Amino acid sequence: MINVTYSGNVQDILTDDKKETLKSIHEGLYAKNGEGNDFLGWLDWPSGLSEPFLNDIKQTADEIRSKSDVLIVIGIGGSYLGAKAVIEALQPYFEKNPNFEVLFAGHQVSGAYLKQLMAYVEDKEVALNVISKSGTTTEPALAFRFLQQYMEDRYGKEADSRIYVTTDAEKGALRTLAEEKGYKRFVVPDDVGGRYSVFTAVGLLPIAAAGFDVEQLIQGAKDAENELSSFDLDQNPAIRYGAIRHQLFEQGYTNEVLATFEPKLNFVQEWWKQLFGESEGKDQTGIFPISVVYTTDLHSLGQYIQDGKRNLFESFIVVDEAEEDLEVFEKENNADQLNYLAGLSLHEFNLTAYKGVSEAHLSGGVPQIGVHVKKVDEYHLGYLLYFYMLSCAYSAYLLGINPFNQPGVEDYKTAIFKLLKKPGY
Amino acid sequence: MINVTYSGNVQDILTDDKKETLKSIHEGLYAKNGEGNDFLGWLDWPSGLSEPFLNDIKQTADEIRSKSDVLIVIGIGGSYLGAKAVIEALQPYFEKNPNFEVLFAGHQVSGAYLKQLMAYVEDKEVALNVISKSGTTTEPALAFRFLQQYMEDRYGKEADSRIYVTTDAEKGALRTLAEEKGYKRFVVPDDVGGRYSVFTAVGLLPIAAAGFDVEQLIQGAKDAENELSSFDLDQNPAIRYGAIRHQLFEQGYTNEVLATFEPKLNFVQEWWKQLFGESEGKDQTGIFPISVVYTTDLHSLGQYIQDGKRNLFESFIVVDEAEEDLEVFEKENNADQLNYLAGLSLHEFNLTAYKGVSEAHLSGGVPQIGVHVKKVDEYHLGYLLYFYMLSCAYSAYLLGINPFNQPGVEDYKTAIFKLLKKPGY
Repeated sequence: MINVTYSGNVQDILTDDKKETLKSIHEGLYAKNGEGNDFLGWLDWPSGLSEPFLNDIKQTADEIRSKSDVLIVIGIGGSYLGAKAVIEALQPYFEKNPNFEVLFAGHQVSGAYLKQLMAYVEDKEVALNVISKSGTTTEPALAFRFLQQYMEDRYGKEADSRIYVTTDAEKGALRTLAEEKGYKRFVVPDDVGGRYSVFTAVGLLPIAAAGFDVEQLIQGAKDAENELSSFDLDQNPAIRYGAIRHQLFEQGYTNEVLATFEPKLNFVQEWWKQLFGESEGKDQTGIFPISVVYTTDLHSLGQYIQDGKRNLFESFIVVDEAEEDLEVFEKENNADQLNYLAGLSLHEFNLTAYKGVSEAHLSGGVPQIGVHVKKVDEYHLGYLLYFYMLSCAYSAYLLGINPFNQPGVEDYKTAIFKLLKKPGY
Repeated sequence: MINVTYSGNVQDILTDDKKETLKSIHEGLYAKNGEGNDFLGWLDWPSGLSEPFLNDIKQTADEIRSKSDVLIVIGIGGSYLGAKAVIEALQPYFEKNPNFEVLFAGHQVSGAYLKQLMAYVEDKEVALNVISKSGTTTEPALAFRFLQQYMEDRYGKEADSRIYVTTDAEKGALRTLAEEKGYKRFVVPDDVGGRYSVFTAVGLLPIAAAGFDVEQLIQGAKDAENELSSFDLDQNPAIRYGAIRHQLFEQGYTNEVLATFEPKLNFVQEWWKQLFGESEGKDQTGIFPISVVYTTDLHSLGQYIQDGKRNLFESFIVVDEAEEDLEVFEKENNADQLNYLAGLSLHEFNLTAYKGVSEAHLSGGVPQIGVHVKKVDEYHLGYLLYFYMLSCAYSAYLLGINPFNQPGVEDYKTAIFKLLKKPGY
C-alpha cells in the first residue's frame, strides 16, 4: 500500500550488527517488552477499536453537526496536530458557505485570536471539544477558561450539552469538571502518547465532526497494522524507511527535509515533525525534521537544498493519483510558451516535477527517499500515519533512544512557571 | 527601532580579521562595488521611491477595491512571499464577511486549488495581479493561462481592465502581452532580486489592495535604510545580527531556528527562509533556516530544540506590544488551577514564556538571539523586513558568498524541462 523507494537495499546498506539490532527492536516492539513499552498502546490500537466506541464517536459527531455550525477544538501538540493534519488534507482549499466548520483554539496563546474567534462565531451555533489528558496544560486550559465562560454566558445551562471533553479516564481537573457539569466524555488512553493519539478519540471526534469517514481512516490504519508487522528489511516499508534514514544520519546527514507536491499535506508534515522530533530529539542526538511544500519552496529553500551545506537528505510523500485535476489547454498565440504542455494534467506535471527535482537534488549530493501513497483519502491517510508512527519507533530505537517519552519539555515549563510564580515552583 | 540581544558583544566575539572583513563588506555595499552589485537596487530603494509612483499604487489599489471583491495575486517565490508575509501579519485571524479579499495562485501547481478557487469567486467580482519578471516562470504562467481564460470567458473585453501586470519594464512575454491587451503595468526592477522585492510594486500593489498603509510600510523601510547604514559593530542591529549568526555558524551551529510567539508572523518567517536560504545556501555551505511558532511548536519541536543534536541556535522575533489582548480573569472553583495568572494578559504571558523558554534552551546548549520589535504594524514590518535584507547581505558576504544570485535553481528546472521535452531542452 505504501512503497518506499531509495537507491539501495536495506540489506546492503546496513551492517550485520544493525540488522541484529533491528531484529531485536522488532521483537521488543511486538512482545511489548522494550524501553517505553508502557506507551505502546498505539501499536495494536486500530485492530482493538470496538464497534460501540466507533459508533459513539460517529453519533456524537452527528449530534454536534446537527446542533451546531462550528466545533471549536481546544488542544495543543498531539491533541491538535493529528486532527488538524487529517482535516486539512481532506477539506477543500476554498469553501463558499461551509455548512459546518472545525476551528482550533488553545494551540497557541493569543488574545487577538481568541477575541476574533469569539466574534466570528457570534451568529453561529457553537460546540466545544476540549482535549487534554490532565486538564491543566496551560495553553488549552487558558483557552477553555475563556471559551467555557463564553459558552455559559451565551447558552446558560445548555452550554453543558455543547461541551465535549476528551481527557483521562479516571483523574485530573478536566475529568472532575466533566463529571460535575455532565459534559459528554471521551478517553485519552494511558498507554498512548499525544503524538500517537490520532486514532483515539483525540483525533477521531474532530475528524468525524468535520464530516470525514473515520471508519475508512481506521480501516487504513488497521491494514497498516496488519501488513507492516512482518520482519522483512526490504519488503516492509516501515522498517525500510526507519532503517534508511538512520543509516543516512550515521553518514552525517543530520537534517531530513520532508517534501511533498501536495499542498494539502502541509499539516501531515507538521504532525510528522512532532512525531519524529519529539520521539528522537534527545540525548544531544536525532535527525532534525524539516518540511517543504513544492513547487512553492523550490522558489525559496530549493537553492539551499540543491547547493547548500551537504548535511541533509530529502524524503518525499509522493501521491500517485489526484482527486481533482485540470488539463493544460492549447492557446493560439502561445505567448507564455506553455503549449508544449498541452494535454498534460497539473497532477502529471507535479509527478514529472518530482522526478526532475529528485534527480537534480540527488546529483547535488542530497540522498533521496520516496514514500509513495496512492491518494489522499481517509483510508490512505490512516495507512500513512500508522506507517510513520511505526517507522519512527524503529528509527528512534536504532539511535538508542526511547521513542515514547519527552523529558525535555519539562525544562521550559519549569522555567516559565518559576517566572510566573506558579504555586509549587 | 530594532534591538538585537545576545549574550556577547560583536566586538568581543569576532576576530580582528572578521572585523576587517565586515568593514570592507560595509564599504563595498554602500559604494556598490562588491560581488553581485548589479542587484543592489533594494539598498536605497525606500528613500528613492517617488511620490507619483506611490500614488499610482494607491490609486490602482483603490480602483481594484472599488470594482472588485477579490484580487487574485499570481506569483511564486519573491513574487509571492513578500506580499503574503505583510498581509498575513496585518489581517485578522477571522473575518465574517470580508468586504475585500486578496487570494494567491501560481505559488504551487494544483488543479484542485485552481478549480476550487474559480468556484469560490464565481459570485464575486474579480481582479488579477500577475507578477513575473519574464512571464514564462512555469507555475505563475500556468495559473495565468487558466485564470486569464476564466476572466475572458466571464468578463469578455472588460477582463483587460481587470488584469494588472507586474513585470519587466521592457521585455518578456508578459510585457508584450500587457502591451497588446492594454493591461495596466507595473515594473519589476532589473536591479532588485525577487526575494528583495517587497518594497517594489511586486509587494506594494497586493499589500495596498488588501487595504494596508503602504506609505507607513515604506516609511519604516526608509527609516531602517537611514538608521542601519552606519558601521557600528554593536550599535547597528543589522550588522550585529548578521555577524553573530555567522560567528555561531563557524562554531558549528549550522541550523538557525527562527521562533516567534506571534502566530501572525508565520509568513514573515517563510519570507525570511527564502531570503536567507536562497542568499546563503551555495557552495556547499550556509546556515539552514528553520521556523517555529510558539507556543504551538514547544509541544512539537520543543523537545528536539531542548535536548537534540547541538548544531542549532535560536533567534526570536519578540514583539513588545500586542494590538489586541485578553486578560486572565479569576474563577471561583479554580478547577484548571490558573487563578495564579489572574490579571495577567495573554501577551504578558507570551513575553514571560519567551524569557522562560530562552533561559531553558540556553541552558540546554542552544545559543539565543533576540530580535525585538515594538509592534506588528505597517511601519514596524517595513523596518523589520529591511533589517533582515541588510543583515542577510552582511551574513552571506562573511561566508564569502554572493548574496544576490541563485545558481542552484536552474538545475531542477533543467531536469524537469528535459523530462517534459520543453523545446530547446
